[in-house]
Amino acid sequence: MARIGVVLSGCGFLDGAEIYESTLTLFFLDQAGADVVIMAPDIDQHHVINHITQEEMPESRNVLVESARIARGNITDIAKIDASELDALIMPGGFGAAKNLSSLAFDGPGASVNCELSALIKDMHKAKKPIGAICISPAVLSKILADHGITLTIGSDSDTASAIKTMGNRHKDSSADNIVVDEKNRIVTTAAYMCAASIGEAGLGIEKLVNHIVTMVDSH
Amino acid sequence: MARIGVVLSGCGFLDGAEIYESTLTLFFLDQAGADVVIMAPDIDQHHVINHITQEEMPESRNVLVESARIARGNITDIAKIDASELDALIMPGGFGAAKNLSSLAFDGPGASVNCELSALIKDMHKAKKPIGAICISPAVLSKILADHGITLTIGSDSDTASAIKTMGNRHKDSSADNIVVDEKNRIVTTAAYMCAASIGEAGLGIEKLVNHIVTMVDSH
Repeated sequence: MARIGVVLSGCGFLDGAEIYESTLTLFFLDQAGADVVIMAPDIDQHHVINHITQEEMPESRNVLVESARIARGNITDIAKIDASELDALIMPGGFGAAKNLSSLAFDGPGASVNCELSALIKDMHKAKKPIGAICISPAVLSKILADHGITLTIGSDSDTASAIKTMGNRHKDSSADNIVVDEKNRIVTTAAYMCAASIGEAGLGIEKLVNHIVTMVDSH
Repeated sequence: MARIGVVLSGCGFLDGAEIYESTLTLFFLDQAGADVVIMAPDIDQHHVINHITQEEMPESRNVLVESARIARGNITDIAKIDASELDALIMPGGFGAAKNLSSLAFDGPGASVNCELSALIKDMHKAKKPIGAICISPAVLSKILADHGITLTIGSDSDTASAIKTMGNRHKDSSADNIVVDEKNRIVTTAAYMCAASIGEAGLGIEKLVNHIVTMVDSH
């Protein structure tokens, strides 16, 4: 049974992990018969956003604690996870990836990335273990693996595509119902809510991504 | 296109709506081509639970604002929704249904129910519009429609089944991968995380529930 890590960044697309992308990743992993290890960093969120008004709220929340809502409590501090425990890793999207896991939303190509996530991704990549990234997460992956010439998609947003090129990687336009596969680097990406018009459209790409990652693990 | 309401009760299974049940309801509704109206009451949560420790946190959150995380901001105060706008209604589960939408978790068969939800459900039922309820929500529905002799499932939990009977309705045991249909009352229920061992198992029952509700609307 493939043992696949899923990295969350909070709970809610404006300040944390995108809930539909996270849930559908877990749903399709379950359908594919994979064993799942859900993780998040034990750090404060960059901020808390009211998802109706889109305004900042005067409170503080912890990324691991809020991510546990999506994980139904079954979650591990990413600092305690070693690449040797996993066969593959998937990062759902949401602004949490660009605000909590990294500073991408504020600093673009010059962003900093959470140390533990960065170390885990580098170890997975070195060990040639498949990595999947959804929505804005491919841009975070691009920063961690800068100058590797990896081919990724974040849909067709020209600013983010340009940032990926500045980081020394390649961008390929894609619709949300499809995936981009870099076979050499064993990296699979899908645009999801970077451009999806519906949860069903995002789901099509996420289902393909999950199944491709599981196939890569099985065929290794 | 069927216009189907979805009632949320926060964001996270211990103090709000169960995230997987809510997301999969929306996913299968989208796949069935339904138009969705997501709603929640504009009230404070009963409490806030840390989903790692399962302990209460010293803070206050609003049910409508937290539900908006699952709705990606596209949510309406349930007080503003009239049954005439909807073809059917679905209530996902989570402790929010038993703590925020009602006091079922504390008061059992003697529970009180949120007024706006109660009025909306009674109007839907009078108009013979289909109602779906998932996980613990069938027990809330049972309280609103007490003494109607409705047949419902919450899985096989004997205490909750007994409470449903005390409320003047009928309980039928069911596994999470299936549904119980009361054709006369046009009510469909599934146990989901009352007994599901996995997100995939809960998904099987939720998919059947959603498709049955949409078929009931189409065949009317």
